[in-house]
Amino acid sequence: MTPEPSTAPVTSTTPDAGGPAVQLPRGFRAAGVTAGLKASGRPDLALVVNDGPDHHGAAVFTSNRVEAAPVTWSRGVVGDGRVDAVVLNSGGANACTGAQGFLDTHRTAEHVADVLGVSSGDVVVCSTGLIGELLPMPLVLAGVDAAAGALTPAGHLEAATAVMTTDTVPKTAHHPASGWSVSGFAKGAGMLAPALATMLVVLTTDAVVDQAELDAALRSATAVTFDRVDSDACMSTNDTVLVMASGASGERADADALARAVTAVCADLARQLVSDAEGAAHDIAVTVRSAASVDDALEVARAVARNTLFKCAVFGNDPNWGRVLAAVGTTRATFDPAALDVAMNGVQVCRGGGVGEDRSLVDLTGREVHVVVDLHAGDDEATIWTNDLTHDYVHENSAYST
Amino acid sequence: MTPEPSTAPVTSTTPDAGGPAVQLPRGFRAAGVTAGLKASGRPDLALVVNDGPDHHGAAVFTSNRVEAAPVTWSRGVVGDGRVDAVVLNSGGANACTGAQGFLDTHRTAEHVADVLGVSSGDVVVCSTGLIGELLPMPLVLAGVDAAAGALTPAGHLEAATAVMTTDTVPKTAHHPASGWSVSGFAKGAGMLAPALATMLVVLTTDAVVDQAELDAALRSATAVTFDRVDSDACMSTNDTVLVMASGASGERADADALARAVTAVCADLARQLVSDAEGAAHDIAVTVRSAASVDDALEVARAVARNTLFKCAVFGNDPNWGRVLAAVGTTRATFDPAALDVAMNGVQVCRGGGVGEDRSLVDLTGREVHVVVDLHAGDDEATIWTNDLTHDYVHENSAYST
Repeated sequence: MTPEPSTAPVTSTTPDAGGPAVQLPRGFRAAGVTAGLKASGRPDLALVVNDGPDHHGAAVFTSNRVEAAPVTWSRGVVGDGRVDAVVLNSGGANACTGAQGFLDTHRTAEHVADVLGVSSGDVVVCSTGLIGELLPMPLVLAGVDAAAGALTPAGHLEAATAVMTTDTVPKTAHHPASGWSVSGFAKGAGMLAPALATMLVVLTTDAVVDQAELDAALRSATAVTFDRVDSDACMSTNDTVLVMASGASGERADADALARAVTAVCADLARQLVSDAEGAAHDIAVTVRSAASVDDALEVARAVARNTLFKCAVFGNDPNWGRVLAAVGTTRATFDPAALDVAMNGVQVCRGGGVGEDRSLVDLTGREVHVVVDLHAGDDEATIWTNDLTHDYVHENSAYST
Repeated sequence: MTPEPSTAPVTSTTPDAGGPAVQLPRGFRAAGVTAGLKASGRPDLALVVNDGPDHHGAAVFTSNRVEAAPVTWSRGVVGDGRVDAVVLNSGGANACTGAQGFLDTHRTAEHVADVLGVSSGDVVVCSTGLIGELLPMPLVLAGVDAAAGALTPAGHLEAATAVMTTDTVPKTAHHPASGWSVSGFAKGAGMLAPALATMLVVLTTDAVVDQAELDAALRSATAVTFDRVDSDACMSTNDTVLVMASGASGERADADALARAVTAVCADLARQLVSDAEGAAHDIAVTVRSAASVDDALEVARAVARNTLFKCAVFGNDPNWGRVLAAVGTTRATFDPAALDVAMNGVQVCRGGGVGEDRSLVDLTGREVHVVVDLHAGDDEATIWTNDLTHDYVHENSAYST
């Protein structure tokens, strides 16, 4: 995903797109195994280990006040900037599980630490799945043993696969730089709404970096990528984006180059999350132009992106621009209602707050839809990516826990 | 609708409920006719006239900044507290129609005024239907003539029928008092989200009242009724709630009795709007208890009511309380996440932020669902009414304008 969708698309590097499998940077090993947490029998536990020489880590987490036990644990882990490993499970979110849930996360980190010979205080834990159920700990711990035994520098795709829930494809991305690179994998196909990090994402780089620059690069990257995806306005209890740097390339990355590379990988993964959102039939970019501030642009774009009537209309290939204006009107952004313009896939359906070109000229049958709202109030601009609201979304989410 | 759904239900007075048709209070005449604005050939233009002796009026309107031409016009009309008549059309919202749209509203009011022998400055205009299309004015003006010729004290139900869009039943209510009464009708089955008045609602009373007390009664009533309905978080451009007082009973209503009667009729109509919301399979009352303030209770209740994952779960009869907590966690209300309790239809599925009674004990197969969130943070409480998110909602709203 790029902030401006009219620029060249980011190259997808998922295996299903026909490209080569994304590899881990030097200094990392990973594995994905089947621990038995999922009824489906699919892989459900992943481990990524940083063998150094550096062990820099940084992370952003959900801003949901009801946060899962692994989020609470991992906030503490990354506080000192060192991360040696991350263990991730699908098949259970370990959220709303009380004191026992936190003990289970702690015990998982201790077990990973014992097996790897590191400190549990340097082990990040991530969980995803149903809220409100305790994890079957014997299976988790045995899964850690199996994953540790399967660790390999070629294990990136296996790890990406083991964290999938309703995802239909594993999501990986890669950005090469001069002698070093950034790789990443992500899971997420629902509960995508930010003002925070989004979903479980693990980024790895072999560049030699300062920890503070790594942290800054991650925060600037997520602010313009994952934070601008809003599939269904539902904020998760477990979202985590972790980056680890091994320094194994021996090549130093300057702050700008690092930020560019991390942003590119985050943008690629964020766009993949939108493309694989639960039940979606359209990927929708809502761009707000000529706003008085970026905050105004984001508020307006998000109001449109969250409007269920608009999202249903796109599902029906219906260029119902009145619903766009009705959503814009709920915001506090600076604009004159009589000056609003709206274009849908290049057709100026609303001009000056009133009727523009014939709505029948708009073709919404493609997967990607671009809505442009011009506020005529300034020079700032922002884009939010969202999805349409479909029968499949309702179907998937009306039968998740039962 | 009552703020507390566990109290006795308000008696519905819609004809389909088996009760007698609701009549207009003394001093009013009404009509509903087919002007030809709807392709379906169903009635689409209503007129309600106050023959006095008093002509007090008050109204609340949408807070959407993109407001329809009739809203802009009618704000001016009610400014002086006098309303002689209201004309309402379905088949077109006359929103986002620019200067021509406002001229059309003005012309409609002028024509009503000419036919009735009143001032156009005392004629409220309401429109509902598709946004972004101009009204076919020759049909509107001929419809006004037809409606004026059909005015009758028995015309309440005909007027209520002529404003229906996706409503499946006309919605009327009545509250008798000592020698006077309040009647009302409403339309609305989508775009139901307030922080404002909701939908088109016309209330009538034959009580002798002060205009200021009438205005105050309306505002206090809508704040706890229509403003607490949030079917799909979509705020309309046309919402109007109008009350007119004729004084024809000769009986004076004191301020408290008037407020009680107006609130009772608004509550009844608001509950009918929820019951008839587009495609809904469940009516959901989200009650937040032990909040530090009513504002906190409303913020939390609204966050739950707007969570699409929660709404899908209810559609699937799935007591997925984790989605309730995830929604609560997005708010700024005062609470300790480890102290949250959630009950669904009487089963305490979440206790102290963790797992409570077995979720399989919850029966969500009935039409009405009651979710109670206890914040353990104070003594205040509020309830928001919403609906589930269903295949029928997606279907109706993906094929509205095309």
